[in-house]
Amino acid sequence: MARIRSLALTPLADFPDIGAGGDLVAAIAACLRASGIDVRDGDVLVVAQKIVSKAENRYVDLPRVVPSPRAIELAEITRKDPRLVEVILSESAHVVRAVPEVLIVEHRLGFVVANAGVDQSNLGPDATERALCLPADPDASAEGLRAGLKREFGVSLGVIINDSFGRPWRLGTVGVAIGVAGLPAVADMRGRADRYGRTLRATIVALADEIASAASLVMGQADEGQPVVHVAGFASPAPHGRARALLRPPGEDLFR
Amino acid sequence: MARIRSLALTPLADFPDIGAGGDLVAAIAACLRASGIDVRDGDVLVVAQKIVSKAENRYVDLPRVVPSPRAIELAEITRKDPRLVEVILSESAHVVRAVPEVLIVEHRLGFVVANAGVDQSNLGPDATERALCLPADPDASAEGLRAGLKREFGVSLGVIINDSFGRPWRLGTVGVAIGVAGLPAVADMRGRADRYGRTLRATIVALADEIASAASLVMGQADEGQPVVHVAGFASPAPHGRARALLRPPGEDLFR
Repeated sequence: MARIRSLALTPLADFPDIGAGGDLVAAIAACLRASGIDVRDGDVLVVAQKIVSKAENRYVDLPRVVPSPRAIELAEITRKDPRLVEVILSESAHVVRAVPEVLIVEHRLGFVVANAGVDQSNLGPDATERALCLPADPDASAEGLRAGLKREFGVSLGVIINDSFGRPWRLGTVGVAIGVAGLPAVADMRGRADRYGRTLRATIVALADEIASAASLVMGQADEGQPVVHVAGFASPAPHGRARALLRPPGEDLFR
Repeated sequence: MARIRSLALTPLADFPDIGAGGDLVAAIAACLRASGIDVRDGDVLVVAQKIVSKAENRYVDLPRVVPSPRAIELAEITRKDPRLVEVILSESAHVVRAVPEVLIVEHRLGFVVANAGVDQSNLGPDATERALCLPADPDASAEGLRAGLKREFGVSLGVIINDSFGRPWRLGTVGVAIGVAGLPAVADMRGRADRYGRTLRATIVALADEIASAASLVMGQADEGQPVVHVAGFASPAPHGRARALLRPPGEDLFR
């Protein structure tokens, strides 16, 4: 991994509300220009999942959802709206844990996440009747943003789409990368020597998750005022990667 | 959580090797002064676990370790040095998983972590005969650094001691906070309203872990050249916290 001198994370101010079908590249480009940030090759933009999902119109109207018997059964266990559970199941490969107030699934994209990442907060005044799913293909969404921003600015940026996930063992959510383009998701340090020539073991570093966490700090969590963060100073060891590289193969996972 | 304008993470250059019993406050203070960084109230210093453990002389000489029958049994399962396994067990409350190449324990401090955080990399040319344990009480270590730096600079800094932990479900290690002083470890957003007045659910944010991850990016992983990172711009919502607040109560954890 390249040595880093200093890392600067700057949220884009006054980011507009993004409606369904909104042009996210245009909005980001306008905010970047207004901010006076000097965008350079290798800089990274971290974009909150929610605005990507909104732009991609990943809303589901709950009154139109008919819960299956399985959704009704899980809704009773988890004390959730059966229509919401139906939406969660439609996004999921299988259920990992279901107990009161908790429904953890393996998302069809491979993420293990509560409620399949389906969200009801910050969706507007009628939010109880709508849910917002993760982007259909967040790696592709990230690549779309990367390509669009390359057209706008002529520079090669990394793009991370982040979300806040809970985790076993430790309290609280942290930012994680659900979509990656233009930078590596992980850096495999296995086989490299430490400063005394001893081979490092078990040191695959989840770079994109660490950047996603750093950006979450700057975005804030209580509202969506700052859903895009510019990251300067990250000297990427390679120009491409995919968030799927962050998924632990289920057969190698001792905890599901 | 306070709104953040911009976050800047700067590693301290030319940090010296820390020997057993070394004065970490003096070393950090000297490097901060040499760096020209303007240290202010509310800034955070993230300090790599390894240099704290070294300064606290948390080394164990493996030739002096006599493995117990239980350590020998687990060493066979995990294909590790039985003396190292004995050290790991002496640091642990209990074993969470033991399979070939993997020994995950609940550390006596509550962290669920591979090998109880006991490390053999970057320990010097004779590292195979030594192991380095986590600090005995990392929250207390962080508080000691905070108090010492307050004496040196007259400002109230936050201090995080970080380490790199693996996690279930996702590949790669991320920086986590194992010691915290002078800033909150978690921010509890439960009960606060989103921008549409809807109550946010399940939003305890692991602030200290997110800062620890951000700092890990800047420290690098392949050597210890940059084990201290200065973080400016984090407007702390409260001046105190403990890393123990980041531990999920075992009774509420579905994955151990």
